[in-house]
Amino acid sequence: MSKGILEGLVVLDLTRVLAGPYCGMLLADMGAEIIKVETPKKGDDSRAFGPFINGESSYYMNLNRGKKGITLNLKTEDGKKFFLQMVEKADVIIENFRTGTMEKLGLGYETLKTINPNIIYGCVSGFGHYGPYCDRAGYDIISQAMGGLMSTTGWPGGEPTRTGTAMGDVLSGLSLTIGVLAAVVNKLKTGEGQKVDVALVDSVVSSLEIITQIYLTSGKIPERIGNRYESTYPYDSFKVKDGSVVIACGNDKLFSLLVNEMGQPELVKDSRFLKNIDRVEHHAQLKEIIEKWSINFTIDEIEENLLKIGVPVAPINTIDRIINDPHIAGAREMFVEVQHPVAGKTTLTGDHIKFSERKAHIQFPAPTLGQHNKEIYQKFFNLTDAQIEEYVKIGVF
Amino acid sequence: MSKGILEGLVVLDLTRVLAGPYCGMLLADMGAEIIKVETPKKGDDSRAFGPFINGESSYYMNLNRGKKGITLNLKTEDGKKFFLQMVEKADVIIENFRTGTMEKLGLGYETLKTINPNIIYGCVSGFGHYGPYCDRAGYDIISQAMGGLMSTTGWPGGEPTRTGTAMGDVLSGLSLTIGVLAAVVNKLKTGEGQKVDVALVDSVVSSLEIITQIYLTSGKIPERIGNRYESTYPYDSFKVKDGSVVIACGNDKLFSLLVNEMGQPELVKDSRFLKNIDRVEHHAQLKEIIEKWSINFTIDEIEENLLKIGVPVAPINTIDRIINDPHIAGAREMFVEVQHPVAGKTTLTGDHIKFSERKAHIQFPAPTLGQHNKEIYQKFFNLTDAQIEEYVKIGVF
Repeated sequence: MSKGILEGLVVLDLTRVLAGPYCGMLLADMGAEIIKVETPKKGDDSRAFGPFINGESSYYMNLNRGKKGITLNLKTEDGKKFFLQMVEKADVIIENFRTGTMEKLGLGYETLKTINPNIIYGCVSGFGHYGPYCDRAGYDIISQAMGGLMSTTGWPGGEPTRTGTAMGDVLSGLSLTIGVLAAVVNKLKTGEGQKVDVALVDSVVSSLEIITQIYLTSGKIPERIGNRYESTYPYDSFKVKDGSVVIACGNDKLFSLLVNEMGQPELVKDSRFLKNIDRVEHHAQLKEIIEKWSINFTIDEIEENLLKIGVPVAPINTIDRIINDPHIAGAREMFVEVQHPVAGKTTLTGDHIKFSERKAHIQFPAPTLGQHNKEIYQKFFNLTDAQIEEYVKIGVF
Repeated sequence: MSKGILEGLVVLDLTRVLAGPYCGMLLADMGAEIIKVETPKKGDDSRAFGPFINGESSYYMNLNRGKKGITLNLKTEDGKKFFLQMVEKADVIIENFRTGTMEKLGLGYETLKTINPNIIYGCVSGFGHYGPYCDRAGYDIISQAMGGLMSTTGWPGGEPTRTGTAMGDVLSGLSLTIGVLAAVVNKLKTGEGQKVDVALVDSVVSSLEIITQIYLTSGKIPERIGNRYESTYPYDSFKVKDGSVVIACGNDKLFSLLVNEMGQPELVKDSRFLKNIDRVEHHAQLKEIIEKWSINFTIDEIEENLLKIGVPVAPINTIDRIINDPHIAGAREMFVEVQHPVAGKTTLTGDHIKFSERKAHIQFPAPTLGQHNKEIYQKFFNLTDAQIEEYVKIGVF
């Protein structure tokens, strides 16, 4: 396997659960050396989140593959000392504690900078490290609600709806990765360090894009409109015999192809559906007409027929369909088998950023708690097995 | 204003509409020089997308601020020649055409590599540049459907639901930015170029995280469960007098604080609600009890009361509330006024990645079509005004 694109980058990773670990996971798959620092005895909270395989959390194993795991108690004086000495030799540190936690430990960015002025310090939190709400605890659902995403997701007359995945966490994990990498680019050029502060709520707000522009420009508050979009039709979900599909006809040509296939070519001359703007206005009537046709076919039939004539269509895949899809799971390798020392054969989500020369890949399975204590504490501090054992006994490792 | 963290990075940006331009926008805010190459006379399709201010698209203006705009017809021989000469001097090129388009133009990665072996070529498309579906057109709704996100978003018994923003585009724009920056880090160290291939569908699949693990581990297909989460309760939305709020009590302590505030401290001893696992099992009954209480208060009252005692709570903000929020719009500067030469005063979404030393910021407004032809064509080719005029006339610029 080729060397990773981030080979040689040393990252101290204090993150737990989702947003921070997702960032560390992406960096690890790209070949950075991630040293995951966990609380002795307990470890990352997500080690206790199901589902489990042979007692190991698949939540944890997926997000922490390719990381070396050590235990270190940052509340002890010895623990702080070891940590600060590791900071001297690291390129990057990432954490997703509640704002102020690192300062309370005496390990805030301002302190770490005096130890290693070039350190890149990446943090992700609910509301960020400054601003009137920065002390509040932030969770995924808080960011989806507060950031406006829930207010625009769902059905007319229905309730605001969260996105089915922890999207606030994912967006901020991606954003922290961007910030850290931009800081590494700058460090390679100028030698300068940097703090990178990412908030779940800000990340959700950034994802709203055009939604906020609609309000800012027109004063109209965007509402929930189900699966259609404000600007184009038919670009929506449609019921079929065994579920639903999405069809995306963004222009007149695609619409004409669709209605030909439906055996109703006259619809292109119907004054309600002449141009995209007319179709958006009469979307409800058009949906009814299309569904009268689509309900006669299965997902597979509709997909085959429309793809043949070049009309964009897709099944609304349930998770089992994705895992068995020849493109997604096959060619794009989005699910990868990894042998874990305790759990055995596991299947993890593959890396989705495809490099031509230095392919990202899962380097090795997630660590068991403290699995790399010996390797890392020998490498950094030349400690003997007996010394490591002693530090475990007194609660430092 | 401090210099940007990516100062000196030259990016040729062929992208249109959302996913690609969002990546270019993030790079521009971080100080890279983005040269946006648009089709003569027409430009980026999104120039025609509303809402408009003085005839200028706010969709376009938001996503293309900080980019220098030139027009260039890549279908002409002269256009290709100019482009290839610019590729020689650029660090990065990004595009989000349909797979195969650049190759048909004779401008695919393999060709560009012969001109500039160190070029970083970033592309984003619906299904990626290889695999059985790679020739299909990909749109946001296709990726949300095909990638499984819609199947897990929405309400029990209800329809699969898309996320209210173009999340497939946003996730892939963020992911392309990560890929390009990782490639820049590697280029600075090794001199090596790279192709970075990002697909909307893969990006959505990566965002599913634990959802796929549930299926892979247990064989259970994750379903739509509204606003609650599989693993913890009460962590959900609740009806109040003037709308809804979300409350996130992830552990016993927070639950006990909540029921005390509700005046029903005995609930912690109720066998249905003893531990988190019990509360998850009896979530429907608990929701009913909490809503009987919450419905008596307004959003603002609930927020004030629960924050006071440290229970995570948030309003489900509509877009108008975000734009006027003292934390989001105030301290975190998530909305920024920019003076556009035609549209006048506009408000754009601010950058959400906060750097301590080299702050990201909106450098200047989005270009009018071909606004920087003179500047760029003089700089790269030393063309005179008359020569530029001539190239405009014959349809090259």
